[in-house]
Amino acid sequence: MALATRATKDAALHAMAGALLAASEAVLAANAEDVARAEAAGTPAGVVDRLRLTAERLEAMAQGLRDVAGLPDPVGEVVRGSTLANGLELRQVRVPFGVVGMIYEARPNVTADAAGICLKSGNAVLLRGSSSARSSNAAVVEVLRDAVATTGLPADVLQLVPGESHDSVKALMRARGLVDVLVPRGGAGLIRSVVEESTVPVIETGVGNCHVYVDAAADLDQALAIVLNSKTHRTSVCNAAESLLVHADLAESFVPRVVEALTAAGVTVHGDAGFATYDGVVEATDDDWAAEYLSLDISARVVDSVDAAIEHIRRFSSGHTEAIVTRDQAVARRFVAAVDSAAVLVNASTRFTDGGEFGFGAEIGISTQKLHARGPMGLPEMTSTKYVVTGDGHVR
Amino acid sequence: MALATRATKDAALHAMAGALLAASEAVLAANAEDVARAEAAGTPAGVVDRLRLTAERLEAMAQGLRDVAGLPDPVGEVVRGSTLANGLELRQVRVPFGVVGMIYEARPNVTADAAGICLKSGNAVLLRGSSSARSSNAAVVEVLRDAVATTGLPADVLQLVPGESHDSVKALMRARGLVDVLVPRGGAGLIRSVVEESTVPVIETGVGNCHVYVDAAADLDQALAIVLNSKTHRTSVCNAAESLLVHADLAESFVPRVVEALTAAGVTVHGDAGFATYDGVVEATDDDWAAEYLSLDISARVVDSVDAAIEHIRRFSSGHTEAIVTRDQAVARRFVAAVDSAAVLVNASTRFTDGGEFGFGAEIGISTQKLHARGPMGLPEMTSTKYVVTGDGHVR
Repeated sequence: MALATRATKDAALHAMAGALLAASEAVLAANAEDVARAEAAGTPAGVVDRLRLTAERLEAMAQGLRDVAGLPDPVGEVVRGSTLANGLELRQVRVPFGVVGMIYEARPNVTADAAGICLKSGNAVLLRGSSSARSSNAAVVEVLRDAVATTGLPADVLQLVPGESHDSVKALMRARGLVDVLVPRGGAGLIRSVVEESTVPVIETGVGNCHVYVDAAADLDQALAIVLNSKTHRTSVCNAAESLLVHADLAESFVPRVVEALTAAGVTVHGDAGFATYDGVVEATDDDWAAEYLSLDISARVVDSVDAAIEHIRRFSSGHTEAIVTRDQAVARRFVAAVDSAAVLVNASTRFTDGGEFGFGAEIGISTQKLHARGPMGLPEMTSTKYVVTGDGHVR
Repeated sequence: MALATRATKDAALHAMAGALLAASEAVLAANAEDVARAEAAGTPAGVVDRLRLTAERLEAMAQGLRDVAGLPDPVGEVVRGSTLANGLELRQVRVPFGVVGMIYEARPNVTADAAGICLKSGNAVLLRGSSSARSSNAAVVEVLRDAVATTGLPADVLQLVPGESHDSVKALMRARGLVDVLVPRGGAGLIRSVVEESTVPVIETGVGNCHVYVDAAADLDQALAIVLNSKTHRTSVCNAAESLLVHADLAESFVPRVVEALTAAGVTVHGDAGFATYDGVVEATDDDWAAEYLSLDISARVVDSVDAAIEHIRRFSSGHTEAIVTRDQAVARRFVAAVDSAAVLVNASTRFTDGGEFGFGAEIGISTQKLHARGPMGLPEMTSTKYVVTGDGHVR
């Protein structure tokens, strides 16, 4: 795979897209089995919806594969290069990791997304989806493997790991030397267990307790729009806001206004004493500050200064995304420098922390760890590097 | 620490260098205790030598700190930047990890090196040296902490972790959320145990089973010089060659010549059938191919092709450094593309895989893992990044 040319890899991606659409009947039938099983088991409607494939969603999966084909090949990119004093030529070049293990929950579209991104970045991928999507994943992977094989690449660069029991996850986590990196995508429990038990290096993704801090010098119309968009644009995603901090100077001018707007949008505000006096606000408990609701809920607190906001974020944030709304340049600089999260936004919605929004064209997840990749991960983040050093008989 | 300016950090580094020399009497006296204890315990002379400090070695430690002060500050470097279609400004900026844990053996100069590199890259560092160097390390760290405190930075950015028992290593490995990254430096056993037991992300360093492959199209004089330099320039280091592969076409023209030269240099050749017929060659066993001798020993094998050399390397290499000697451009390209190691050298000695030789100016170790950093690690490798996104009220 490391030696495959971009032309070959792009041909495989287009073949995969075409095959997925050509086999849509079989894939949708397999998906219907998963959906029926989930419904029979009394699975909540929201979860069933994430499991469900439609002709439209299959088309989006195919388009995703074609989009990845259109992106530059990260493999071979020269990251750093120079000629040393002794004439040695030094090049740091991107290379594939080798074998990537993906452990993910429910949504079968991740199967095609991950397969496409790993193939383009020159990696073989072991896909371990959830058992609730087993029929869908098996159908999708079979179609994609057959398509890959038609382009001269081995079908085995894409493999589905049996998802019936936890044993296969354990085997992946212990496959040091065989699997180069594991990427868990899903709930906090899944991610924590992989991080703690794996001897294979892990890229932790996705838990987002994101904050919006409205500074004393905020444009209040902008602040209102950003809070609403961050909280309500889509609630089930990791870059949705879960906590609102408002400067004490705005206790009267902004707090009642934002409570009213959030409440009107169906949001339950879990507020401290500065918020709790307003209609509809529920008193916040200590658990609220660290909660990733993923629902129409938000915790809210009045703080005395930007430093108090920074301190609150340091204590409770998951390190995903925090936003500040301010017109004060010095305050913005202070917040950006002192907040240690994967993304810090100034006068913009937390919802922008996203590989698509950042222009990466494809995203395998959003890393909340500091090693290797932090924030949205595109194709370059799915590679390692090596140094290539060329001389003509150089010795020390 | 993340907010410290370059000027402050460089002042601290110069203060550390000056204080180390000013306190040389006390540091050397503390070191003499370690040396006496090691000698009384019957420690091999080579190990005692690595433990020993001299006025000259202290001067080198001080110069190392001054050199780090002269290097650019990695913190704040913009790695990637663009303005998105909607006008949002996107910047990926280098930031410190936070807290780095260093676990290392014997040599007390690592204490000053690691302290300097971590301080310049904006990290706090927990230094866990070996108990054999405990008096030296305590003396060095006390001097460095006092020096740091004179420049307005907190002394606690440098801390020595008690090294008397394995409990403190265990505590570091379990300090997820408190320690951001662990860097073990030392023998294979130490590194393996940290990699397997740590829940804190680890950067694996240093085990080197490095190969030199002499191709059919090699310049034989160059090949001889590169083999000798790679093996004998310094045997105790991770970038020394441990294994020699020679193309079958050179069985008569080169094999006897390289055996004679290696033997004359005091090297024991552990050879396969193609080598074993020559005087002084010891027959290789299966264990030899994977051995990191770190001594005047080398395993040697005749291979039928560059692909056979690549296959041997894939099977036995530790992924540190491999060199090819050839005048054939196509063979060099094939070897560089197919060998998956941190450094691949063409017509140059394996001894060049080194932060100093690469022009990085300082090195915290050589990573042999694929995540985050691979090969010699300088200041930029001791940082993470964050995305800073600036808008004027942007919502989705």
